[in-house]
Amino acid sequence: MHSFVYDALPVRVVFGSGTARTELAGEVGRLGAGAVLMIASERDAERVRALTAPFAERVAGTFTAVREHVPVATAEAARAAAAGADAVVCIGGGSTVGAAKAVALTTRLPILAVPTTYAGSEVTPVWGTSGNGVKTTGTDPVVLPRTVVYDPELTATLPPALATASALNAMAHCVEAFWAPRRNPVSSAVAEEGVRALADGLRDGAPADLLLGAYLAGTAFAAAGSGLHHKLAHVLGGLGMPHAATHAVLLPHVLAFNAPGSPDAAARMARALRADDAVAGLRAVADAAGVPHGLRELGLREDQLDEVADRTEPVVPADNPVPVGGGALRRLVRAAWSGDALQQ
Amino acid sequence: MHSFVYDALPVRVVFGSGTARTELAGEVGRLGAGAVLMIASERDAERVRALTAPFAERVAGTFTAVREHVPVATAEAARAAAAGADAVVCIGGGSTVGAAKAVALTTRLPILAVPTTYAGSEVTPVWGTSGNGVKTTGTDPVVLPRTVVYDPELTATLPPALATASALNAMAHCVEAFWAPRRNPVSSAVAEEGVRALADGLRDGAPADLLLGAYLAGTAFAAAGSGLHHKLAHVLGGLGMPHAATHAVLLPHVLAFNAPGSPDAAARMARALRADDAVAGLRAVADAAGVPHGLRELGLREDQLDEVADRTEPVVPADNPVPVGGGALRRLVRAAWSGDALQQ
Repeated sequence: MHSFVYDALPVRVVFGSGTARTELAGEVGRLGAGAVLMIASERDAERVRALTAPFAERVAGTFTAVREHVPVATAEAARAAAAGADAVVCIGGGSTVGAAKAVALTTRLPILAVPTTYAGSEVTPVWGTSGNGVKTTGTDPVVLPRTVVYDPELTATLPPALATASALNAMAHCVEAFWAPRRNPVSSAVAEEGVRALADGLRDGAPADLLLGAYLAGTAFAAAGSGLHHKLAHVLGGLGMPHAATHAVLLPHVLAFNAPGSPDAAARMARALRADDAVAGLRAVADAAGVPHGLRELGLREDQLDEVADRTEPVVPADNPVPVGGGALRRLVRAAWSGDALQQ
Repeated sequence: MHSFVYDALPVRVVFGSGTARTELAGEVGRLGAGAVLMIASERDAERVRALTAPFAERVAGTFTAVREHVPVATAEAARAAAAGADAVVCIGGGSTVGAAKAVALTTRLPILAVPTTYAGSEVTPVWGTSGNGVKTTGTDPVVLPRTVVYDPELTATLPPALATASALNAMAHCVEAFWAPRRNPVSSAVAEEGVRALADGLRDGAPADLLLGAYLAGTAFAAAGSGLHHKLAHVLGGLGMPHAATHAVLLPHVLAFNAPGSPDAAARMARALRADDAVAGLRAVADAAGVPHGLRELGLREDQLDEVADRTEPVVPADNPVPVGGGALRRLVRAAWSGDALQQ
């Protein structure tokens, strides 16, 4: 690719085992923060108390009423809790980061994020809130965390099934970055590195590799944007399919569909997975992780396939490496449902 | 590497053939600049007139007294020329970017850089001035260009020998980034991608690949810092050795020295060069580019070798992958001088 525009994002990353214990107070100080609003879900209360102890005198308040998809009422309550604070520190997964972003969106307070899952949203400028059954999302540089402290000790306690699903969700961010609309040589290189780290981490059950991969995946995704895979996953999510599992099942099928039109994606995947063939390599990783082959195993019905294809087709980026018209997308959706190899 | 700190830098990159003609006015507008100081050397006057024509009404002045290593008097003259300007646009090589950075250092004006060589300094926050035989350098985020417009049409006219030397200098930035003190997974991935682009560009004589490689090299170097190779090159430069040629001759020797202690660097180089062996692969690239094997072919004398080793040893980063003590650095310097393979 020899033509691109890339706005590199200025996130400070502190990565290492134990850093949440040893570096957090220093990083809060580095932001010049004197009155911090902590955001963390109630179930993390004990862990958060321990991690904030070194800067307890600078914690002005703690918001724990975190909810999935950041309902508007949650956003407003978190903003109210931020009155008088000069920074937000969030410790948790995507919903917690989401609440911190909702605060930053209206208050412009800097965020320091400490992720406890592999969601990756801590390195993107994308925010989202939900209300009346509608999800509103947007992109604003003010919601991008200034500092992210990645500590593999925090993700080591994730239940294995959740860790695997979350890691495969991150893998989808990497793969999609290879052909998404704003892809560029940096996002592609970072995504390839992410695939390598995630595959190593899945194979060895290594939280540090998985967390590194999640960081790289989020970074690549923030730069490159989303494409066919995420458009399909979004439509499937709207039909009530489970988020992470759907991503995991879908990904090898979408790669099989797009690889013939993206030699770059195929070469990077093969290299990162140390496989002769990109699709076979990814299938092997998914099989080892226990990912089902077809969406029917997750409950999708055959009579829903046309609806999935029809809703997705209009929103697939025009430069998807393989055209989705002429029934091609229907064939992909059917293969992803049945688990059989694609007939192109 | 599972422990690192990485401050990602917020550069906006616009890359593509013809972009200096088609995108420059829009990018100047994007900075909100109404009165631009142009900086470009006199020999680029005609090209600069053509490129600035689309926003001529916003050019408040042009500074052409660009000098190598930015003498203090040059910096002061450029700053005086910036009075009343609200942005600096520089078109040229390292010296031109250097003058723009000197202006930004005291005025905090934003820089838009249009590189015409493979120097890479347009994506680093490093500035330098010279006076009374002393070079002063520093790092400050205010000198990092906000926007870089990379147009391979501008580097296509570089004399081939200069293009090759400049590309190998960029290759040194990539290789060094693998083991330099602030290396991290992103800078390593970007450096590997840079090696790939530079090797492709050197093989095919493709300016777009070389310019892409130069951008990636500068980005990796800005993040990772410098190590053994640049410490040696700096000492050799102080003895009057030619800059780019010295880098080119030195690099395969330094890689041969460090590779046994950095399996990561060796694996990345081999992968990027599609070679079984990193050192042999780099030697092949250098041979094809006509790089001499030994520094003696550039005029270094045998009686200078001890001095080179003695001056370099104290400044080599402590975590260089292979220890330089116990005569090891002397053996490296001798090999780099003679052109013979290293006896470790």
